Amino acid sequence: MDSRPGVREFGITIGRFPPGRNNAITDVAGVRVGHSTRIEDRSLPDGQMRMVRAGCTAILPATGDIYDKHLVAGGFVLNGIGEMVGLTQILEWGWLETPILLTNTMSLGAVHAGVVSYMRRRYLLGVESDVIIPVVGETDDSFLNDVRVSTVTGEDVAAAIDSAEAGVIEQGSVGAGTGMTTFDFAGGIGSSSRILPEDDGGYTLGVLVLSNFGRMRNLTVQGAVVGAYLDARMPREGRRENSYGSVIVVVATDAPLLSSQLSRLARRAALGLGRVGSYAASSSGEICLAFSTGNRLLRRSRGSVRHRTMRFLADTHINPLYEAVIECTEEAVLNAIFHSGGMSGRDGHRSPAIPVDLVLEALTVSTLTKEPE
Amino acid sequence: MDSRPGVREFGITIGRFPPGRNNAITDVAGVRVGHSTRIEDRSLPDGQMRMVRAGCTAILPATGDIYDKHLVAGGFVLNGIGEMVGLTQILEWGWLETPILLTNTMSLGAVHAGVVSYMRRRYLLGVESDVIIPVVGETDDSFLNDVRVSTVTGEDVAAAIDSAEAGVIEQGSVGAGTGMTTFDFAGGIGSSSRILPEDDGGYTLGVLVLSNFGRMRNLTVQGAVVGAYLDARMPREGRRENSYGSVIVVVATDAPLLSSQLSRLARRAALGLGRVGSYAASSSGEICLAFSTGNRLLRRSRGSVRHRTMRFLADTHINPLYEAVIECTEEAVLNAIFHSGGMSGRDGHRSPAIPVDLVLEALTVSTLTKEPE
Amino acid sequence: MDSRPGVREFGITIGRFPPGRNNAITDVAGVRVGHSTRIEDRSLPDGQMRMVRAGCTAILPATGDIYDKHLVAGGFVLNGIGEMVGLTQILEWGWLETPILLTNTMSLGAVHAGVVSYMRRRYLLGVESDVIIPVVGETDDSFLNDVRVSTVTGEDVAAAIDSAEAGVIEQGSVGAGTGMTTFDFAGGIGSSSRILPEDDGGYTLGVLVLSNFGRMRNLTVQGAVVGAYLDARMPREGRRENSYGSVIVVVATDAPLLSSQLSRLARRAALGLGRVGSYAASSSGEICLAFSTGNRLLRRSRGSVRHRTMRFLADTHINPLYEAVIECTEEAVLNAIFHSGGMSGRDGHRSPAIPVDLVLEALTVSTLTKEPE
Amino acid sequence: MDSRPGVREFGITIGRFPPGRNNAITDVAGVRVGHSTRIEDRSLPDGQMRMVRAGCTAILPATGDIYDKHLVAGGFVLNGIGEMVGLTQILEWGWLETPILLTNTMSLGAVHAGVVSYMRRRYLLGVESDVIIPVVGETDDSFLNDVRVSTVTGEDVAAAIDSAEAGVIEQGSVGAGTGMTTFDFAGGIGSSSRILPEDDGGYTLGVLVLSNFGRMRNLTVQGAVVGAYLDARMPREGRRENSYGSVIVVVATDAPLLSSQLSRLARRAALGLGRVGSYAASSSGEICLAFSTGNRLLRRSRGSVRHRTMRFLADTHINPLYEAVIECTEEAVLNAIFHSGGMSGRDGHRSPAIPVDLVLEALTVSTLTKEPE
Repeated sequence: MDSRPGVREFGITIGRFPPGRNNAITDVAGVRVGHSTRIEDRSLPDGQMRMVRAGCTAILPATGDIYDKHLVAGGFVLNGIGEMVGLTQILEWGWLETPILLTNTMSLGAVHAGVVSYMRRRYLLGVESDVIIPVVGETDDSFLNDVRVSTVTGEDVAAAIDSAEAGVIEQGSVGAGTGMTTFDFAGGIGSSSRILPEDDGGYTLGVLVLSNFGRMRNLTVQGAVVGAYLDARMPREGRRENSYGSVIVVVATDAPLLSSQLSRLARRAALGLGRVGSYAASSSGEICLAFSTGNRLLRRSRGSVRHRTMRFLADTHINPLYEAVIECTEEAVLNAIFHSGGMSGRDGHRSPAIPVDLVLEALTVSTLTKEPE
Repeated sequence: MDSRPGVREFGITIGRFPPGRNNAITDVAGVRVGHSTRIEDRSLPDGQMRMVRAGCTAILPATGDIYDKHLVAGGFVLNGIGEMVGLTQILEWGWLETPILLTNTMSLGAVHAGVVSYMRRRYLLGVESDVIIPVVGETDDSFLNDVRVSTVTGEDVAAAIDSAEAGVIEQGSVGAGTGMTTFDFAGGIGSSSRILPEDDGGYTLGVLVLSNFGRMRNLTVQGAVVGAYLDARMPREGRRENSYGSVIVVVATDAPLLSSQLSRLARRAALGLGRVGSYAASSSGEICLAFSTGNRLLRRSRGSVRHRTMRFLADTHINPLYEAVIECTEEAVLNAIFHSGGMSGRDGHRSPAIPVDLVLEALTVSTLTKEPE
Repeated sequence: MDSRPGVREFGITIGRFPPGRNNAITDVAGVRVGHSTRIEDRSLPDGQMRMVRAGCTAILPATGDIYDKHLVAGGFVLNGIGEMVGLTQILEWGWLETPILLTNTMSLGAVHAGVVSYMRRRYLLGVESDVIIPVVGETDDSFLNDVRVSTVTGEDVAAAIDSAEAGVIEQGSVGAGTGMTTFDFAGGIGSSSRILPEDDGGYTLGVLVLSNFGRMRNLTVQGAVVGAYLDARMPREGRRENSYGSVIVVVATDAPLLSSQLSRLARRAALGLGRVGSYAASSSGEICLAFSTGNRLLRRSRGSVRHRTMRFLADTHINPLYEAVIECTEEAVLNAIFHSGGMSGRDGHRSPAIPVDLVLEALTVSTLTKEPE
Repeated sequence: MDSRPGVREFGITIGRFPPGRNNAITDVAGVRVGHSTRIEDRSLPDGQMRMVRAGCTAILPATGDIYDKHLVAGGFVLNGIGEMVGLTQILEWGWLETPILLTNTMSLGAVHAGVVSYMRRRYLLGVESDVIIPVVGETDDSFLNDVRVSTVTGEDVAAAIDSAEAGVIEQGSVGAGTGMTTFDFAGGIGSSSRILPEDDGGYTLGVLVLSNFGRMRNLTVQGAVVGAYLDARMPREGRRENSYGSVIVVVATDAPLLSSQLSRLARRAALGLGRVGSYAASSSGEICLAFSTGNRLLRRSRGSVRHRTMRFLADTHINPLYEAVIECTEEAVLNAIFHSGGMSGRDGHRSPAIPVDLVLEALTVSTLTKEPE
């Protein structure tokens, strides 16, 4: 792995709100992120090679016990050629009670099984307490990762969860993002955060993406279609062609919100994908999940308490969060690319690192005089 | 396993259309069903017992290669406290390209991984062809099945798929339905079918349910709330209390339909659940999937063909299918119970067989003079 | 108009919960209902006749100012070949701030305009306060009502609103239900209510339907398909044939609920439609709206208050409301028919009153020995 | 009215596809647009003035009889604090059978009634044929238009429909857009079109917006937030403050699509709104409708034909349409502003014309060196 600086370190700022200390989803108090990464070149007995470029990423949405003390959550599907296990339940029920795991398409079940095992060791699930439907999202890394071999295991899941930390998080080609490709550049895991002004409530909002979508020519940075500039200057051969990939967006905030408000927030995350160049390609899965650490529910009280009370942000004051989630999503996708040093994979495939100098060059070209594509 | 006759053999008919030869989803040409069942009393080293009452059920939606030759599909979520992996994609895209697997909540991931392995052995998924998101639905068998131990494996999945057959299918406490409980009686897998009159197109429609919901007092047979009658006459202790379970409904038809029409058909299946006594309890997952064998799409043609042509039933002629799916769903749930001989499970739990004589007795009580509850 | 007793007065009870004092939506404290009815045989200058069988019905969801003091609301579309103006906003926002009006399809706009005029006279809409999107639902009465002439006016709307009262409400062929036909019998407006036991919270839930759907052979009373019995004994000529009509369900409760919970409640109302014989015909609009009087929001506080607090029923305690809404919906549709004395209309069309004696006769036929259709 | 050139005439191009001849929705063969505009300063008897700035806009989606020969349609609600009557039916059914009308919020019902009257004069609606639910969308013009008086009448509706023409269409502060305000500038009706390359099918796609949303500081042109530049240089007083407005997007294409594909196309239109600076404000209605002229259905055949056949674009070839709809939506919103010469209204309110020179100046500022907000 070869992590590099994020987009902001090159003077590229997205939006009008300032980021938090880590410019990451972990700026929301309590949120922790951990990765398991497998980069292995396995020799098979017959001499063939299997290049493994895979992993999983765990987001712990809050400190303390999230199974016994739920969080409020919501979601939105911009384009559904993808999967997030557990989303149906969240959209119906509005509660999140497990870690959020991200991985590649073919490992979805293995990671689900891993979370079940992990939580079964901690709770008497299905005996003294309810069974769970963990949240697991996926995108397809088969351009770089050789999915003929199973890779992500229950141990990887446990390692990702157990290693989850607050603070600076690794981004780029790491964890679930190891084998991912975004706008034809390497990079899968990206994050960003915003702090609202005190007048807007002073809330923190953070986004983490598992990004794996887009054609180079559509990459848009600060509104400029720099991808068209890059596309004309970089070799076209060797790019991923028959797949349009997918993206998972996870939004966290400490603003106290209802589930319906979080679903609306998730819908705005989709606009951030649009701003960075997504047109939600037909075969792409673009799935957004949002949760709030600002409302917790005790499981053990569920049977005994007839009424609940929830405090939530008035809709009239929610717009700054909408702006912030768009900014964060846009920047998180860029960070997924900028943080990666490139990645080679199966059958000679390679997703290059983004040439930052060319991006900066493109940005200095006036938009009015930009060359025709 | 102790399979018994279905509801119809007791003179109880549901609805106005006649069933097909097997009164099962397999009456739709090409549809096959297979089960893997694990009923094991495992002794742990420390002397504890683990009663395994689990399994999985595979529905092969058509003969031939369903990966290379998709079927049209749609779905509906009546209440979303459950999971059907792959549903998001079907709702977006309208195509079904894998077998449909059913299992218990905690085995969802393992079964998903099993299908991935199974199909990876047959196709170069992710190398020469697209990766897959298999369809896997679940309900929670933890009242009878001891979910502290993992049970359903990839081998079970392969066995269920490989054993899938047309014709008569096993129902009751078998396959994914092994540990399920419906209206406080044992039984999980049920099926039924209808043949439309030639004037209505002569189509076949079949339903298979994985049923695991309901309190006894709501069981409704032919519109009569016989459950209230049974409830007053059967012991109340030992019933499942803190869970309301779930139900998965899979609908098959040979009528040529669009995906949007199949989603509408799936919505009517929910009305059939209502007729048998479901009120879609708050913590229940009631998820319906529908597919048609009447429109197939060649995968290999996907990239090269710009236009497709699809033939489909006019909306003006679809109502008999709506009636049929309600009838089938209602009868399939009843069959799930009637076919089971009862099931004991972990920690002394037991879901009894339905006392058919009491049901028949209840049905002879005039609805006008029925005793107050 | 020729109002007759409801279904319950014939000893036919639906469900297990007792009704409120009026067995009507008005049993929910604060809810009021008013009708404007036009039954006119107009002679045109050329000697032609226009038989007007139309009207509108107003539901005032609470006492006091509902514009300045919103109610929480939600909804569900079982089949969308119909219209409820304002539903999009309610599903997004979760608030109800106008009366609910019901009318016939062709008068939808006129009634909308009438509510706008009515409320403009009371508030400085669009000048000192927000504009409104009133809630107006419709079904198609063109089988009996001659829609070549415009009938329902702004004055009718004002009269319906101003005459709205608590207590006993007129049902059958009255107000918006004047020209409606249900299961081939006359009748459009029906209502019912349930009081939950104190152990279940003691809440009141009421339903009002504008019913205009169904073929006779599917009419189901207490689970018995008495429609098949009636169908074989009543003349077939003269029935509505090329339309399947629609139904609007309005649910009120004093239980404090969130908007998302009310949408889930509305979904269960659809199961009640299923129990009375609906299969949600392809060309039918089956739209359900639900509101709670248990949470009010002051409009004037909207701009100034950053946080709100809402008290709501825990999901774990909501199931009795689900059962109650199914019971109420089923009984409300029956009441729409039972309360009508029949209605003749344009071009010799006539929807008869339901022959109650035949219904009772059908119910005494044991379900096990019921004659083949 | 004081129409000015569109955004493209200033050298500002949006996206990579070329526009059609008129750069308007009318480039899709058969689509016609007509406006009725009321700009009146009415004196009341008591000396008060009522400044009317209102109107309606009609889109005829195809030549010939659209009632007897339906078009395929779909839609998407990005944020639902708005209304499009008829959308529920289109989402369920997939057919469009009336003109599409746009107007202001308070006139929604009057315009609906106007379309009903108009079509009743042409067809025996409700007597020999089905009744209709016309499509009518709205946004709120009450910042400029004095909604204390009713303005848009049935005659206006008829005039808009009857005057609808192909070719160049009026844009800016005209028709339904007369009193609308976009990013604090005058302008409501905007349009744009794209022609796909022959390799992408050669289809035409056009968009017409009724735009009435946004704060100045968010206006984004070619990805540059020029609104922040303008916001710092233009007076802040007198701007609309307590409302965030709404936007209706109507998409037309001659590509043969299924209803589900058109709904997916409508979802991408929302991404175009995001690119021009929308964050889908909480109180905004952002509703998108899409129709295809490439599939027509004869009404009279509905009852008699059991099967239909539809030819449609394969999903694998649909992505260029997704890109095109994003480009068109972005440019249509800009055209709504650029074409307007400013508009004054009630109580001294005024929405200025956009200062094009300042926009061009802002665009020449390098994005990397842009001044802090």
